[in-house]
Amino acid sequence: MLNPGDTIGILGGGQLGRMMALAASQLGLKTHIYCPDPDSPAFDVTAYHTCADYEDEEALEAFAQSVQRVTYEFENIPAPTVEFLKKRLPVLPDDNVLKTSQDRLTEKKFFQSIDVKTANFRDIASQESLQEAVEAMGLPAMLKTRRFGYDGKGQVFLKKIEDVEGAFDAIGAQPAILESFVPFEREISVIAARNEKGQVVSYDIAENVHKNQILDTTTVPADISEGVAAEARKIGEKVAEALDYIGVLAVELFLLPETFERRLIANEMAPRVHNSGHWTESACLVSQFEQHIRAVAGWPLGDTTRHSDVVMTNLIGDDIERREELLTNPATSFHSYGKAETRDGRKMGHSNHIKPIKSS
Amino acid sequence: MLNPGDTIGILGGGQLGRMMALAASQLGLKTHIYCPDPDSPAFDVTAYHTCADYEDEEALEAFAQSVQRVTYEFENIPAPTVEFLKKRLPVLPDDNVLKTSQDRLTEKKFFQSIDVKTANFRDIASQESLQEAVEAMGLPAMLKTRRFGYDGKGQVFLKKIEDVEGAFDAIGAQPAILESFVPFEREISVIAARNEKGQVVSYDIAENVHKNQILDTTTVPADISEGVAAEARKIGEKVAEALDYIGVLAVELFLLPETFERRLIANEMAPRVHNSGHWTESACLVSQFEQHIRAVAGWPLGDTTRHSDVVMTNLIGDDIERREELLTNPATSFHSYGKAETRDGRKMGHSNHIKPIKSS
Repeated sequence: MLNPGDTIGILGGGQLGRMMALAASQLGLKTHIYCPDPDSPAFDVTAYHTCADYEDEEALEAFAQSVQRVTYEFENIPAPTVEFLKKRLPVLPDDNVLKTSQDRLTEKKFFQSIDVKTANFRDIASQESLQEAVEAMGLPAMLKTRRFGYDGKGQVFLKKIEDVEGAFDAIGAQPAILESFVPFEREISVIAARNEKGQVVSYDIAENVHKNQILDTTTVPADISEGVAAEARKIGEKVAEALDYIGVLAVELFLLPETFERRLIANEMAPRVHNSGHWTESACLVSQFEQHIRAVAGWPLGDTTRHSDVVMTNLIGDDIERREELLTNPATSFHSYGKAETRDGRKMGHSNHIKPIKSS
Repeated sequence: MLNPGDTIGILGGGQLGRMMALAASQLGLKTHIYCPDPDSPAFDVTAYHTCADYEDEEALEAFAQSVQRVTYEFENIPAPTVEFLKKRLPVLPDDNVLKTSQDRLTEKKFFQSIDVKTANFRDIASQESLQEAVEAMGLPAMLKTRRFGYDGKGQVFLKKIEDVEGAFDAIGAQPAILESFVPFEREISVIAARNEKGQVVSYDIAENVHKNQILDTTTVPADISEGVAAEARKIGEKVAEALDYIGVLAVELFLLPETFERRLIANEMAPRVHNSGHWTESACLVSQFEQHIRAVAGWPLGDTTRHSDVVMTNLIGDDIERREELLTNPATSFHSYGKAETRDGRKMGHSNHIKPIKSS
């Protein structure tokens, strides 16, 4: 268990690392950010950082000496980096989780193993196996690389039979899975947390809308029944428990139409704080970032009660220029990640609009 | 007007500077902390700091070169430091405010000049003038140094005539004022903010309870009538306007019994974020810290609506050891300032307990 004044090492210096560092500061903990990018926005919000490659063992050794525990802001940390650090101090969440979530096939099999439904899928190793899978499963379907995909990268939507030819090459001829297209009504997500004592909590269910395959808005509460919401929270908590997870995780779920017997299917999980949990900053006393830091520190988890209804809007690229308007709107927060360069499609900040909870 | 990525210099590296820096980070602004104390808790939460005396002109010059605007966390900044910086870049709030608030006599006269009531007072320059003032005003009364008093330091309570002898020496034989003791019912405070465009806002009125002359709890809403609350907010806004103030300020007020015609009298003001505004962190979308940074940056002020009722409790000295309990309590935040050493009477952190607003 950490004490105030101890230091948490964070691998990754983007906005998630930055917001984790800010939350740690609120709790009286120090942070040390490790990231190869000299322009890392998280470097600005702490006195301690290392700018070095994830393969630089000398830098990793010094980093390990300077912190008491390590966590990370993204799931694609190179496995040898985690193994190197793990021999020296606790790295949380454990890398067994990375092995599960870094590979879509392993992840889907994990969901099935704990009785969480997924779309039908097939393992794809070649254009031939893709052709066979399409014949067996039908179209439409999604072809996705097994590893290193996010925000719609490494994916092809196969609508008609003509789309199948060359599709395996189009995603880089890498190991992949074919997933049945799911006629979902809504996309929702659950943010859950677990600590080393086995305490598990989850937040209210959020409804997500994407634009150009990047999260655009998150609305809480989601427009779903209480029963579906309870089931979704249970899925988040079950995943955390099944993985002996320590920290915050997100599970993205699809809500199927009422004609389906089991209406929730898991799309994917992220073993980290998640964009669809940014609303917790403005609508809960304990944000997902603080919750993650509490778990990593070995501290009790916090209250997840929502005090307000909320809509989170991502500020992508030039959206950050809406600053003046967002600063002026009532009941609206403005959060900028302090990134030096605005680029198309780059997450630059977000805004939360809150309103009182409607009493039912 | 600052842009995200610009840097605000903060004079003072205590908990207030630390919380201002955290708020600036949320807005995408960088901070540079200047403080002579090598153990400054604010140094931990930003990449940029200078540890040097306030008289060190070389260090001040380099500091001025590295930031776009300067603000401060405490009102007793040496005047030459502010003058040095002011020649080079904007220092906010302006030092005319410091001149008013650093001297209890000037401050009281300022309140009177804008028709804000104060306790009766007399200028005291010697034991003889103290004796005369006691004869004219009667007892009980408070003898207070004109400058550099806070948390009850530099004050003597004169209850009986025997307490008067030697009292001027007891406060260090410094210029002082004698204030009539006010039989107040409650101590309340207002946090107000103003920006360079003249926009003025204030927060809901807080009720403060002190223990050993240090703030113990702040409760919002205060147990006062709507009329008194509106009048108190008006006082805060009037002070900000009269001073052409830029930033957040606090005015401490005493509420007199109903038998008095004008029930609110001003005790003192603080030209900075204030301990009695820490509740805004957990019960408002825009905290006093963010509000101050917005004003200093030349940005629009934020919404001050309170979304929850709240009790803030200071964690003084060993109170910080209540961490485990506070982290576990429902609807309770825990905030530690990350101070290396726990000392009796030292502000180590605070905790906010929120509950839904009772609808009337």
